[in-house]
Amino acid sequence: MSSNRPLILVTNDDGISAKGLFSLVEVMKPLGEVVVVAPDSPQSGMGHAITINHPLRLEKSTLFEGITAYSCSGTPVDCVKLGIYEVLNRKPDLVVSGINHGANTSTNVLYSGTMSAAIEGAMEWLPSIGFSLCNFDGNADFSIAKKVVSTIAEQTLKNGMPKGICLNVNIPDLREEEFKGVKVCRQAHAYWEDSFDKRLDQFNRPYYWLTGDFSDQDKSENTDLYWIERGYASVVPTQFDLTAYEAIKELENWSL
Amino acid sequence: MSSNRPLILVTNDDGISAKGLFSLVEVMKPLGEVVVVAPDSPQSGMGHAITINHPLRLEKSTLFEGITAYSCSGTPVDCVKLGIYEVLNRKPDLVVSGINHGANTSTNVLYSGTMSAAIEGAMEWLPSIGFSLCNFDGNADFSIAKKVVSTIAEQTLKNGMPKGICLNVNIPDLREEEFKGVKVCRQAHAYWEDSFDKRLDQFNRPYYWLTGDFSDQDKSENTDLYWIERGYASVVPTQFDLTAYEAIKELENWSL
Repeated sequence: MSSNRPLILVTNDDGISAKGLFSLVEVMKPLGEVVVVAPDSPQSGMGHAITINHPLRLEKSTLFEGITAYSCSGTPVDCVKLGIYEVLNRKPDLVVSGINHGANTSTNVLYSGTMSAAIEGAMEWLPSIGFSLCNFDGNADFSIAKKVVSTIAEQTLKNGMPKGICLNVNIPDLREEEFKGVKVCRQAHAYWEDSFDKRLDQFNRPYYWLTGDFSDQDKSENTDLYWIERGYASVVPTQFDLTAYEAIKELENWSL
Repeated sequence: MSSNRPLILVTNDDGISAKGLFSLVEVMKPLGEVVVVAPDSPQSGMGHAITINHPLRLEKSTLFEGITAYSCSGTPVDCVKLGIYEVLNRKPDLVVSGINHGANTSTNVLYSGTMSAAIEGAMEWLPSIGFSLCNFDGNADFSIAKKVVSTIAEQTLKNGMPKGICLNVNIPDLREEEFKGVKVCRQAHAYWEDSFDKRLDQFNRPYYWLTGDFSDQDKSENTDLYWIERGYASVVPTQFDLTAYEAIKELENWSL
């Protein structure tokens, strides 16, 4: 099964039957040889979790016509690892994740299984991209998103990716005539003001649902939230080196 | 229950009965008012996962004498969120996580539930620290680790933390006379060369265990792995802004 076409590994966090994944496969098909390894159930909010205390299952899927596809019992990061080290016979030329149903702007990048899959690709030094549409609806309209995905994937295959970097692409939920274009920018410093919805079960024992409001205190320009609000898709180059280099000097003055 | 003593939220990812958590509570007790919210089961490798598709349980625990403690059915990040927004009546002055049984150096920071709890604290703009001992044994010797934890926690309460930053502290598994001191440094660019141990179950169906070798290609000095190997504890200031700022200019030349 050798081929000179780019080998493209596709995954997501909404699960193998999500419309966003089908949209992503549809866009990738003309660009290369596509292999899907996606979670068998929704894995939103799983972040960079890996499965180490349970065995993983990997099942062939017939959901995608003419495409090799597997569903996996694990997380999005497990899917990338299984894809690279168990399913494919060589390293892929591109790892794409999504199209997520819902935004992964700002600090949501840390909670997002979609983006963690792309970050895992970057840790393997592979060009990797996470795509998200700012609409949670399972039946959302991906037509603008598909155009953005196509352009960015083609440019990535053509230009290569800076080493150790992946892209966090968020696409606003707009009609064609409202969509303004694409902006490269930084992650906004917004965060969740969490709260918990406390309820009682049938035995009068409490349980909690995580909820909250997303609070954007970051009033500066050139953030992902700034451009999304103004009708643009945002592209944030994203890295796995979490070192706060500027703080090293300050901490060296501590009495450790 | 008002107090002028610092309020310290303690969590971990090995679960509420782990020896490392008891060691951490023991060190924190003289430093302030301690409240524990820790997972009711091991949560290693859960990264920044949050629980959104299942309700969370929170149970009072009597494991820690004289200390308010809760076990939680969720992830380490859930514990921090529940601790801050449901258990405590004010924001804590310090969030500490650990002491992890096993290293969280280099890119392991992304997989680590211990460190994700500390990163979540930083996202709340709270001084936060994750502590790990480079020994996976459930009965490891935490005596050196406790001294390092005490010094760093005291310095953090005294100096405050640079905003939006937490600390990733790894402590080598050494005897007192072998231990060299503490170094502030950066995250090594090492990674896992994954492999999967494929087995057959009782029905002859395959299942997979994630395994692999940790590969340190980063030969430069002043990384956490460099100092740990030389007998020092490593302190990496760690941030939740994943933007690769240096790549923004390069990407702006793409035809998007």
